[in-house]
Amino acid sequence: MESTLEKSAFENLIKGHPFDTARQLADIFAETAVQRDKEGGSALEERNLLRKSGLLNLLIPKQDGGLGADWIDILKIVRIFARVDSSIAHLFGFQHLILATIELFGNKEQRDHFFQETAAKNLFWGNALNPLDLNTQSERVNDLRIVNGRKSFCSGAYDSDMMLLSAIEDGKLIVGAVPSDREGIYIHQDWDNFGQRQTDSGTVEFQQVSVFEKELLKSPGPLGSIRASLRPCIAQMILSNIYLGLAEGAFAEAKNYTRAQTRSWLSSGVSMPQEDPYVLANYGNMFIELQAAKYLTDQAAETLQRCWEAGESITENQRGKCSLDVASAKVTTTRAGLFVCNKMFEVMGSRATTGTARLDRYWRNLRTHTLHDPVDYKIKELGNWALNQELPHPSFYS
Amino acid sequence: MESTLEKSAFENLIKGHPFDTARQLADIFAETAVQRDKEGGSALEERNLLRKSGLLNLLIPKQDGGLGADWIDILKIVRIFARVDSSIAHLFGFQHLILATIELFGNKEQRDHFFQETAAKNLFWGNALNPLDLNTQSERVNDLRIVNGRKSFCSGAYDSDMMLLSAIEDGKLIVGAVPSDREGIYIHQDWDNFGQRQTDSGTVEFQQVSVFEKELLKSPGPLGSIRASLRPCIAQMILSNIYLGLAEGAFAEAKNYTRAQTRSWLSSGVSMPQEDPYVLANYGNMFIELQAAKYLTDQAAETLQRCWEAGESITENQRGKCSLDVASAKVTTTRAGLFVCNKMFEVMGSRATTGTARLDRYWRNLRTHTLHDPVDYKIKELGNWALNQELPHPSFYS
Amino acid sequence: MESTLEKSAFENLIKGHPFDTARQLADIFAETAVQRDKEGGSALEERNLLRKSGLLNLLIPKQDGGLGADWIDILKIVRIFARVDSSIAHLFGFQHLILATIELFGNKEQRDHFFQETAAKNLFWGNALNPLDLNTQSERVNDLRIVNGRKSFCSGAYDSDMMLLSAIEDGKLIVGAVPSDREGIYIHQDWDNFGQRQTDSGTVEFQQVSVFEKELLKSPGPLGSIRASLRPCIAQMILSNIYLGLAEGAFAEAKNYTRAQTRSWLSSGVSMPQEDPYVLANYGNMFIELQAAKYLTDQAAETLQRCWEAGESITENQRGKCSLDVASAKVTTTRAGLFVCNKMFEVMGSRATTGTARLDRYWRNLRTHTLHDPVDYKIKELGNWALNQELPHPSFYS
Amino acid sequence: MESTLEKSAFENLIKGHPFDTARQLADIFAETAVQRDKEGGSALEERNLLRKSGLLNLLIPKQDGGLGADWIDILKIVRIFARVDSSIAHLFGFQHLILATIELFGNKEQRDHFFQETAAKNLFWGNALNPLDLNTQSERVNDLRIVNGRKSFCSGAYDSDMMLLSAIEDGKLIVGAVPSDREGIYIHQDWDNFGQRQTDSGTVEFQQVSVFEKELLKSPGPLGSIRASLRPCIAQMILSNIYLGLAEGAFAEAKNYTRAQTRSWLSSGVSMPQEDPYVLANYGNMFIELQAAKYLTDQAAETLQRCWEAGESITENQRGKCSLDVASAKVTTTRAGLFVCNKMFEVMGSRATTGTARLDRYWRNLRTHTLHDPVDYKIKELGNWALNQELPHPSFYS
Repeated sequence: MESTLEKSAFENLIKGHPFDTARQLADIFAETAVQRDKEGGSALEERNLLRKSGLLNLLIPKQDGGLGADWIDILKIVRIFARVDSSIAHLFGFQHLILATIELFGNKEQRDHFFQETAAKNLFWGNALNPLDLNTQSERVNDLRIVNGRKSFCSGAYDSDMMLLSAIEDGKLIVGAVPSDREGIYIHQDWDNFGQRQTDSGTVEFQQVSVFEKELLKSPGPLGSIRASLRPCIAQMILSNIYLGLAEGAFAEAKNYTRAQTRSWLSSGVSMPQEDPYVLANYGNMFIELQAAKYLTDQAAETLQRCWEAGESITENQRGKCSLDVASAKVTTTRAGLFVCNKMFEVMGSRATTGTARLDRYWRNLRTHTLHDPVDYKIKELGNWALNQELPHPSFYS
Repeated sequence: MESTLEKSAFENLIKGHPFDTARQLADIFAETAVQRDKEGGSALEERNLLRKSGLLNLLIPKQDGGLGADWIDILKIVRIFARVDSSIAHLFGFQHLILATIELFGNKEQRDHFFQETAAKNLFWGNALNPLDLNTQSERVNDLRIVNGRKSFCSGAYDSDMMLLSAIEDGKLIVGAVPSDREGIYIHQDWDNFGQRQTDSGTVEFQQVSVFEKELLKSPGPLGSIRASLRPCIAQMILSNIYLGLAEGAFAEAKNYTRAQTRSWLSSGVSMPQEDPYVLANYGNMFIELQAAKYLTDQAAETLQRCWEAGESITENQRGKCSLDVASAKVTTTRAGLFVCNKMFEVMGSRATTGTARLDRYWRNLRTHTLHDPVDYKIKELGNWALNQELPHPSFYS
Repeated sequence: MESTLEKSAFENLIKGHPFDTARQLADIFAETAVQRDKEGGSALEERNLLRKSGLLNLLIPKQDGGLGADWIDILKIVRIFARVDSSIAHLFGFQHLILATIELFGNKEQRDHFFQETAAKNLFWGNALNPLDLNTQSERVNDLRIVNGRKSFCSGAYDSDMMLLSAIEDGKLIVGAVPSDREGIYIHQDWDNFGQRQTDSGTVEFQQVSVFEKELLKSPGPLGSIRASLRPCIAQMILSNIYLGLAEGAFAEAKNYTRAQTRSWLSSGVSMPQEDPYVLANYGNMFIELQAAKYLTDQAAETLQRCWEAGESITENQRGKCSLDVASAKVTTTRAGLFVCNKMFEVMGSRATTGTARLDRYWRNLRTHTLHDPVDYKIKELGNWALNQELPHPSFYS
Repeated sequence: MESTLEKSAFENLIKGHPFDTARQLADIFAETAVQRDKEGGSALEERNLLRKSGLLNLLIPKQDGGLGADWIDILKIVRIFARVDSSIAHLFGFQHLILATIELFGNKEQRDHFFQETAAKNLFWGNALNPLDLNTQSERVNDLRIVNGRKSFCSGAYDSDMMLLSAIEDGKLIVGAVPSDREGIYIHQDWDNFGQRQTDSGTVEFQQVSVFEKELLKSPGPLGSIRASLRPCIAQMILSNIYLGLAEGAFAEAKNYTRAQTRSWLSSGVSMPQEDPYVLANYGNMFIELQAAKYLTDQAAETLQRCWEAGESITENQRGKCSLDVASAKVTTTRAGLFVCNKMFEVMGSRATTGTARLDRYWRNLRTHTLHDPVDYKIKELGNWALNQELPHPSFYS
């Protein structure tokens, strides 16, 4: 099987620059992306490749055994994956969101411990933190927390080595980092939505799950400091880069298709679609939208990186400005993405709807993921800044 | 099985007004629409219900054994079906397009014969006419035509009783009406596109198929008179009504979902999404788009009906104006449909992407079907009228 | 002077059908529209022509000496005027809004009296009713009301024969119909806005103005019954028809200009702009927007007329539905108008910005008038209907 | 007069950083911008201030007596002026376009001569080059060219010290740099368009005007080398920065107005427009559009500067990419600008149409200037790149 060959070739490559590794991996993921979109379920092989590639440790500093990349590069790699497989990009992105959460919500000891262990063992982290789902409770019993309930939208929990969970204790959200095979954790493979099909964003059930004190990220805790409230900025930037990469992938696919397979329209007066004035206008408009989204997203990544580097000295104003840049990226990538994933079909023609190509997956993936939180409220926040100079109020979404 | 019970109940109903029958049928189709979208393939049971309902004979005058409906009502029924199942609406609509083609392209004898036979036997017609696909040839051998080749996008050919085929003979398009089980006709069930999945729009293969002189529609023949060139107007109106019905169905589904299942956004300051100013604005905008599309489509249906009734006395100017009204309907329903099928998710939220509901099917169906012919060229035709007072040049698409 | 000649010719014409009269008048208005847009101030000559034409009495039944037209025709005439001069259309429209207000807010005696007097003397009514401006107070002194204060946006008050005023008395809005030369009324010619420049929408000052009991429209009074709350529907329909007519006029002007004066772009590959694919697309898009706006506006006019004819038997539901149809017309004409008044320049080219043609007046007039009340709240009302089946709450704007 | 006082204060300031000088000048221009928009004609006083400020010499290297600024800074200053007065920004921008034209089209001697003279005498250059207007001819008579004819759209020619003219000689465009008071040159003050009213973009007439050999820029001549074809990139960047600055100015004005003068809408349920969800959404959307336009414009400025610095070593590919970045800036600033200049009124309300504020000037200026060349063809060029990897063909507009 070709793919296996390439995979073994790949294993020699992963010592290169992370971008090279990521592109190599993306080529491998691309081979099976259509089939895996059809099947849904867990991308076990691809997850293992990610583990082996070392890219799960990008955020972890070199002294802790990681690759020591900055957010600018990490987010570019999210985009590289999203161009061919936005589910994998999602899993990969959330790995880094979770690592960031540990750094932002926990204390130095926890960070050192989890970062070093992640790097040493190439651990894959799953997410069971969804703060909008209040169906998980925590109770204090001696030194332990006992967690019970269910959590929805747990991306990447299946096949994870570790996971971040959240629960309500005395009306407050607590967050803990636990091994995914901790007794009482049941990870359901019940994700079968129409998009982002291999993100395993299903349900995790907790039955009398013990969480130890040292596993609780409570200093400063969830959004517990200005710096801690960078988390939503990181989360939203991962989303924006998935949207952008996904749209870029759709655009590239459309371009290849138009040139190779589309016929000129019978009343167009031209012999090839490449010369059709309306096809060119559609491409021009898609290109402009993507370019604008790209610049705003790159700009936001730089702002985020500066804030990340500021450490505890970050000010409310810096964090607020970062949140605004991130919101601009979110809105623009959402709009550009939806535009491209709809319009692409008009420049390819009706044969591009063939089931074998599954080109609708771009739209399905994007439409699903862009519902993470309402874009209307991002626009409102930007308006509140533009008109009233009021910064967004930090929350898990702003 | 409930559905069977309802179906037997339905069989008592089909003597009522066609609208009642259609609504009753639509309710039955709705029950299984999600499952059938998943499975694809042929809607055999539904096709049989259509046969039994008598609705396949709507266009056929009462004196010929049909229901004698006008285009205004036929197109409204297309819309009724499209609200719940745009594949069925497509098959139903094309039945009437084919009957119209017989009347428009053939002579009175042919029309009488095929209409009366259709009414007597509730024949379902399939389409193998796609004029853009030139891979079917006809050769004259004595009194016969011998047809060879393959035809793509043959909606409804599978399980049809009769079909309309086209082929190239001496560089010209000829059209014939033949029994679908004619020797040498092979109907492949190879349609597996991402939308309009139960339209059986696959390939028909012709191996030495005989077509008799009396089966050839050549007087006046394809687009052979002003009246004959009403055919594309009818085709485009069927498409427009499918798009509109489909969008109305999506809108209705969204509305029910928002009210029953959506939660208000955490920073919205309201307790129910029904009070959220942005949700209301989104609904308002969807409503306006649908309303505009509906009025333009209804208007075009009236114009079409007047042209149909004009018979051979129709003028180029009347036909041209009809084509323009139809183009307006086509553009507006396409745009309103795409707007609604994208936006509906923003007013439902991320849980609406669940695989069990398959709510993406509205977009998949619409996006697939709206690629029938490029909307950009409809806009150009309208512009050419608006600026230059030039009527569209009749073709299979204008 | 040519214009005078035509005017005398016109005086022989005004016995014809109101549409003919209106078109004839529009031709006369068109001759000087550019110059009058430049000068601003009062269109005294044109107002007198309107008086002489009899068109000020369109709404007044024949038995009361008027022309007995319905709203459908009155609104079409608003549109005819708006195509060439939206200020005149505004004055003409408000004449009928005021007459409607008298019928809707007052008692039968008042209606008969004011209608008959208007018809007999061709009275022109001015507006001093703006309910958002609370700077006018009324005090009861014996049988009289004494009104003091200032009112803004008093369209058509200057040179009017009669006016409708409103004031606050005991926290409630009262409305009265008084001669414009009533002692203490000072009509300032202080309207100098950038659009709708000849609507005299300036300030009226009231110094100890007496209003008699019989002049007060208080049975049922402002919005005092379901029927009375048709007033905002009429007001909004007049606005919508002004917007639509204005946009149609802009479109016609653009068309003539493109054909007569625009050169094809140097890289377009065509010799005339009429063949440029992008020029055609722009015209196509303008045409579609105008068509949709027109159908929705015509539809709303029919709904309004039915409600008007229902008299006191009108139900809340009918009035609510009418308000929704009117809102759709308002939103669509606003959008189509802004689209056309911006886009028209792209199909004419830079020379069309010449000061002598003042083609910017379409945009200036439309932009000014479409700010009458926020279109966002019309969209919200439509959304509230679409999602919640809640009818708009009657107010002076809904 | 206050303004005179400030002007004298300003004269002490002009030794500061060019940005400070520009902002100071902008404050002065802002004081009279409304009045000058009303009057039209020539901004003589402001032009003299520009002369005195030294900013006319920004592009000229320090060794030649200028300020030695790069394009990035020059274009930012265009934007600073455009925020308050897009006519002045236009004149200022074209000064630098003309200087660039001399450098790009002429030989080193000419460049040195004209640059040094400009710097020494603070010369203001006017434009009589419009290549689309073919009504100017040149004839060779001995060593001289004799130029006759008329040229339209000659921005800044009135009150200029020097001008660049173009004419057709033997079917080819020649360009010359001459003193504006050369015998036979008649500069008509006939510009009276609805926007960019103080750009003096009227007609220049040539009657037997002598042009000397050394005044002809013919080595490499108009678009005569890859580097020479940077001229349209510079021209388009000046336009884009005018559009952007203009839109930023409109946005700032709207913001101040909403906060200071707008009342909340009566059915909004909020007490101040700053809290209205739709007002906030409108501001958010304007902000996003402006941000995207700004990033693309800044990016294009950097690309342009790199190309400028590349000198004669610039490749076709570099120049082509520059042209594409410039096209993106042009399209985005055009769209964002039109959006803001229309929408701003919806967040201010109807009183903002008052004639004294002349807030329509933003739209008038933008709409006029954005017609310089059709944005549709910029989109086509971007599409041709995106789909076909074809670079724009250099012309005076691409």
